[in-house]
Amino acid sequence: MSEVYAARRDRLRERCHAAGSEAALVSGNANVRYLAGTAPAGAVLLVCPGQDVLLCPCDPFGEAGPRAAEDLQVLLLAEADGDPAVAGAERAAAAGRGSLAVEEHHLTVSRHRALRSVAPRLRLTDLGPAVEQQRLVKDDEEISSLRIAAEIADQALGELLESILVGRTERHLALELERRLVDHGATGPAFPTSVGTGPNSGLAGHLPSDRRVEEGDFLSVCVGADYRGYRSEIGRTFVIGTSPADWQIELYDQVFAAQRAGREALAPGTPYRDVDRAARLVLEAAGHAERVGPRIGHGVGLENDEDPRLTPSAMGKLDACVPVTVDPGVHLPGRGGVRIDDTLVVRPEADGGPELLTITTKELLAL
Amino acid sequence: MSEVYAARRDRLRERCHAAGSEAALVSGNANVRYLAGTAPAGAVLLVCPGQDVLLCPCDPFGEAGPRAAEDLQVLLLAEADGDPAVAGAERAAAAGRGSLAVEEHHLTVSRHRALRSVAPRLRLTDLGPAVEQQRLVKDDEEISSLRIAAEIADQALGELLESILVGRTERHLALELERRLVDHGATGPAFPTSVGTGPNSGLAGHLPSDRRVEEGDFLSVCVGADYRGYRSEIGRTFVIGTSPADWQIELYDQVFAAQRAGREALAPGTPYRDVDRAARLVLEAAGHAERVGPRIGHGVGLENDEDPRLTPSAMGKLDACVPVTVDPGVHLPGRGGVRIDDTLVVRPEADGGPELLTITTKELLAL
Repeated sequence: MSEVYAARRDRLRERCHAAGSEAALVSGNANVRYLAGTAPAGAVLLVCPGQDVLLCPCDPFGEAGPRAAEDLQVLLLAEADGDPAVAGAERAAAAGRGSLAVEEHHLTVSRHRALRSVAPRLRLTDLGPAVEQQRLVKDDEEISSLRIAAEIADQALGELLESILVGRTERHLALELERRLVDHGATGPAFPTSVGTGPNSGLAGHLPSDRRVEEGDFLSVCVGADYRGYRSEIGRTFVIGTSPADWQIELYDQVFAAQRAGREALAPGTPYRDVDRAARLVLEAAGHAERVGPRIGHGVGLENDEDPRLTPSAMGKLDACVPVTVDPGVHLPGRGGVRIDDTLVVRPEADGGPELLTITTKELLAL
Repeated sequence: MSEVYAARRDRLRERCHAAGSEAALVSGNANVRYLAGTAPAGAVLLVCPGQDVLLCPCDPFGEAGPRAAEDLQVLLLAEADGDPAVAGAERAAAAGRGSLAVEEHHLTVSRHRALRSVAPRLRLTDLGPAVEQQRLVKDDEEISSLRIAAEIADQALGELLESILVGRTERHLALELERRLVDHGATGPAFPTSVGTGPNSGLAGHLPSDRRVEEGDFLSVCVGADYRGYRSEIGRTFVIGTSPADWQIELYDQVFAAQRAGREALAPGTPYRDVDRAARLVLEAAGHAERVGPRIGHGVGLENDEDPRLTPSAMGKLDACVPVTVDPGVHLPGRGGVRIDDTLVVRPEADGGPELLTITTKELLAL
């Protein structure tokens, strides 16, 4: 496993070299994890010719050191050593490096100033989202972790549907889902589980309240599992009771059609914005232009919400082996709404097209 | 309630004015919540003469707007409006402000550059931890929220102790505790609940594993509730089985004595480092110098871990009405350990000394 991380760091090293920087200081937590195999809170990774170093902050809990890739030097700093990023810059300067590329989109102004002051001769450049770009296309190992993460979320959701729902609060349904994720081997939820009932249904990211499930409600659930750091996402909407009302069937069909259009647009070479447009057009045609959120989906991996963003203004094209969500929804104020959300991996037509990781049925179930 | 937030913003306004800045842009999430009464992810607060404005990012979920203090203008930005901090700077410049104080310890280098480029004539200064300092001393409203948060954690912990523990995994005990927090009215856990058994016991911040509770184990639990944004913290260590071993009794007594010494050191005017030293000396005398973490406690409020930090190198003195934890622990590699953690509010001797918010017994219980 360790050589995978070494190879990732080599790619970054080459990129830095090409950009004229002798070393890189990676401070984005998911970026550190991607390159080092572990990322204790606050740890930074110094990537430089010779030996790479993972600098871990003075552990407020006096824990044992992290399990990093074997070939990586790990430094557990003492409290007096202060900010690991500053310690990293000092190290780079002491090693005679002339320039250091830092992640200006992760480093605060204060920390950046501290780096400059401890290593005034070190030229600080901007690494930019270089590591985020490396993370876009996933390898087989990463995709199989995502596949398991998706399977776990499917199982947790499936079990919830078999239980009695009427009368239970959004909060408790969310907690039960999270418990089941762990039962099935997840490290934990990939993000705060969202459960919306009645007027709260269809609001993605809705934080569970004390509202109880009632007959006739729409019930929308968005849940994901964290498996080995990789995060799945699935969203489904159900109807509580015997038969859905006409407006519920109509709205569900519209969102389902939009979500299918988004899924079918997934292919290598397709511009991000075209995926957004494919789903958005269906909902606009149904008169919901004002009710569609700013985006139709997003990348998943070591973060639940990472590049690419599938929005009307997104720049760039999909590649093969890029996992994304397609999660359009419509919410009618006061009545509720529908959201349907899958995690898929972009695959070429020749390989059968997009690989659906979250396989729970998308027909409108009456529970 | 609303005037509380207005008064807090007025204090900040005066402070800015005294420091020569005409306006302030607050981007730290807890700081925004403290001043605005709400803080959607990514929201920033522009505090300036006349009307303060809460700028909320294009909501990726198309949610309804936040419930901010009534007298506060709330702007929900569209995706095209981009970064709320940038929009805030543009607004300040358009309003003819000459200078804007920003939180350089929260703002990334990239965002700071974006602010400069949209408002080149606006002089950007550093607000520093001005809002964090305002948050140090809590008002009665805040302390009563913390009191309820502590009560909820006490209840959840008390119920867990009445259930069968042997054979259950750390993960499931942690999940049950979090479910009980919510049962008792918490918004959620204040931080990831820590449950350590056997060799994992006494490791503060230990993430629950699949290890099962066994006879003779130490069981250490650290849990807290989030109530209205305010976060309690309690840690206790128990023995599983009929009677603790001698080494367990000895270690427990040492940590208990250290924790009591720390609690007794809490008083207005006491230097932070003296509280750390009071507890640390007890454990050093017991031969655990190397096993004590870098700090003995920390402030709690809208964040679980905020100022003041009770460490050997901390600068500053305690004030009345500052809530802190006192949470020393010792972990013996391979055997396990003890951690005892309370949330207290600093009070003058005349008012009876420190107010203990987490009242669960600290005698060594055999469960």
